[in-house]
Amino acid sequence: MHSDRPAVTVMGLGSMGSALAAVLLERGHETTVWNRSAHKARPLVDRGARPAATPEEAIAASPLTIACVLDYEALHGVLDPVAGSLAGKVLVNLTSGSPEQARQAAAWARSHAADYLDGAIMTTPPGVGSPEMMFLYSGSHAAFEAHRPTLASLGDPLHLGTDPGLASLYDAALLGLMWSTMTGWLHGTALVGTEKTPATDFTPVAIRWLTAVAGFLTTYAPQVDAGRYPGDDATIDVQIAAVDHLIHAAAARGVDNALPELLRSTMERAKAAGHGSDSYASVIEVLRNPADGT
Amino acid sequence: MHSDRPAVTVMGLGSMGSALAAVLLERGHETTVWNRSAHKARPLVDRGARPAATPEEAIAASPLTIACVLDYEALHGVLDPVAGSLAGKVLVNLTSGSPEQARQAAAWARSHAADYLDGAIMTTPPGVGSPEMMFLYSGSHAAFEAHRPTLASLGDPLHLGTDPGLASLYDAALLGLMWSTMTGWLHGTALVGTEKTPATDFTPVAIRWLTAVAGFLTTYAPQVDAGRYPGDDATIDVQIAAVDHLIHAAAARGVDNALPELLRSTMERAKAAGHGSDSYASVIEVLRNPADGT
Ligand SMILES: NC(=O)c1ccc[n+]([C@@H]2O[C@H](COP(=O)([O-])OP(=O)(O)OC[C@H]3O[C@@H](n4cnc5c(N)ncnc54)[C@H](OP(=O)(O)O)[C@@H]3O)[C@@H](O)[C@H]2O)c1
Ligand SMILES: NC(=O)c1ccc[n+]([C@@H]2O[C@H](COP(=O)([O-])OP(=O)(O)OC[C@H]3O[C@@H](n4cnc5c(N)ncnc54)[C@H](OP(=O)(O)O)[C@@H]3O)[C@@H](O)[C@H]2O)c1
Repeated sequence: MHSDRPAVTVMGLGSMGSALAAVLLERGHETTVWNRSAHKARPLVDRGARPAATPEEAIAASPLTIACVLDYEALHGVLDPVAGSLAGKVLVNLTSGSPEQARQAAAWARSHAADYLDGAIMTTPPGVGSPEMMFLYSGSHAAFEAHRPTLASLGDPLHLGTDPGLASLYDAALLGLMWSTMTGWLHGTALVGTEKTPATDFTPVAIRWLTAVAGFLTTYAPQVDAGRYPGDDATIDVQIAAVDHLIHAAAARGVDNALPELLRSTMERAKAAGHGSDSYASVIEVLRNPADGT
Repeated sequence: MHSDRPAVTVMGLGSMGSALAAVLLERGHETTVWNRSAHKARPLVDRGARPAATPEEAIAASPLTIACVLDYEALHGVLDPVAGSLAGKVLVNLTSGSPEQARQAAAWARSHAADYLDGAIMTTPPGVGSPEMMFLYSGSHAAFEAHRPTLASLGDPLHLGTDPGLASLYDAALLGLMWSTMTGWLHGTALVGTEKTPATDFTPVAIRWLTAVAGFLTTYAPQVDAGRYPGDDATIDVQIAAVDHLIHAAAARGVDNALPELLRSTMERAKAAGHGSDSYASVIEVLRNPADGT
């Protein structure tokens, strides 16, 4: 089990932790693993992982420990009793949680002389190891730089800033974008489905369209930063007229309209706040100030 | 003004009609133009377009007429009085409207011995002429095939089927996807913005993430067609747990939560309908059956 890749410990061998450990092994890292339910280490040990009998043993085995358990309660349940063994080590926490939980964990790690990096995995277990998939990190920049090659085995590592809460904040924001996009796509799929168009016909068109939509986001991002929303391409007023076509088409076909109705009322709030002839980017003004324009 | 490209007429020279005519001229088509307010033809005539004095003259000038006016009321206001001149011609209608309006227009055109193609332009005027931008068509397949090279000058032409309502239906579905995606992005942008992350920092990450999300849609489309939603990667139950992180993070920062709350309640409806351990694609079941699981 010798290799020129640095040794790594993975704690938590659920579906995600097991995927992380498997990819590290595959890339030639000496990989130590630990899980509350020890039997989940078996398939990894068969592929060359070193099983640790206790959390202390796991942490002691490598300069870098990657933790990926269910939630922060589980994380602290595992690590708090063995905090002393973290001194001088780097802890990369890929457990999902809130920015506040990440900040508290960073302070806790610091108080035990450990370097802390928080992370968010922007893929599912089968995507681990692909250089296209993003792994978002925040917290210690030194730890990130020191372990970048190891982190790059898991996916494309992006360091967002030294505030340890940033990875979780981005995670929440990106998941919100995902659910919005998936629900919008499912609504469209349901709509065209009423006229017998299969989802597999509509989806490639929807995906090409998302590329065009990504172009709109690129146009709108600097408008958001500038706080000015020139409506050259399409105004909120024009979008309100168009959303009515969608609402009528869906209503006529018995498709749920809660999402389009919410989108319409959000646009109406932007219009009421004076953005009728501004671009869609001006909708951010009402999202930032929930009390306005309602 | 001689060219080997077929002659085309464009009726309606608003921002979109003017962009269509400009690109046709640029590609070497003999282009005849007409607009209710004649002065809008001027810049096109300066670039070689032939001005038509009346709608009849416009239609008579070319085998193919492309109409792009505000709405169907405007369309019928212009064309009904001159319907006789459409006999033997092809009418491509790029005016936005409902599937029902498109079907009525197709029947009307047929009754006047014209071939009819309905279309939806999936870009803004500056995108016209780019082969990446989609122009969706439905209706007469013969008309589409006969004029495909001309239509390809405007963007990538896709024929969706012979039902003339399909282009409008896709248009509504795709715009719904656009508003959902843009609103989800703006919500995420507002959220990270509370921690001083500029929109121009968040957006490239959001756009990369949309590529991963497009991969999920490709996975989910055949699930929708099969009516079976295996939750191998991530279940509705797991998504419900994660959406609470988003709602709390946004609430703690004073960001509007109407969209995440709606997404959450939609997921809850899917769960109530028995899809807790299914994939997100199962949400389509509650969108199709608004009365269920509420
Ligand atoms: N799966 C994904 O697609 C995905 C994507 C991005 C992020 N994540 C995040 O990755 C983390 C792990 O997810 P997963 O999919 O691997 O979940 P999972 O398959 O349910 O595994 C949960 C892991 O947490 C451990 N655990 C739970 N409670 C514990 C406790 N009280 N003490 C010690 N260990 C405990 C489990 O140990 P036992 O085996 O002993 O139960 C197991 O190793 C979560 O925070 C999740 O949000 C997952
Ligand atoms: N702009 C876009 O980004 C975009 C994208 C996709 C689809 N579309 C669709 O394209 C169509 C045209 O949009 P546009 O952006 O060009 O709009 P626009 O700039 O407002 O132009 C409207 C056009 O309709 C004409 N018109 C309005 N009422 C009329 C009437 N009663 N009789 C005769 N002509 C009348 C106008 O003539 P006058 O000059 O005489 O007023 C003008 O030519 C719409 O259906 C729109 O939804 C636009």
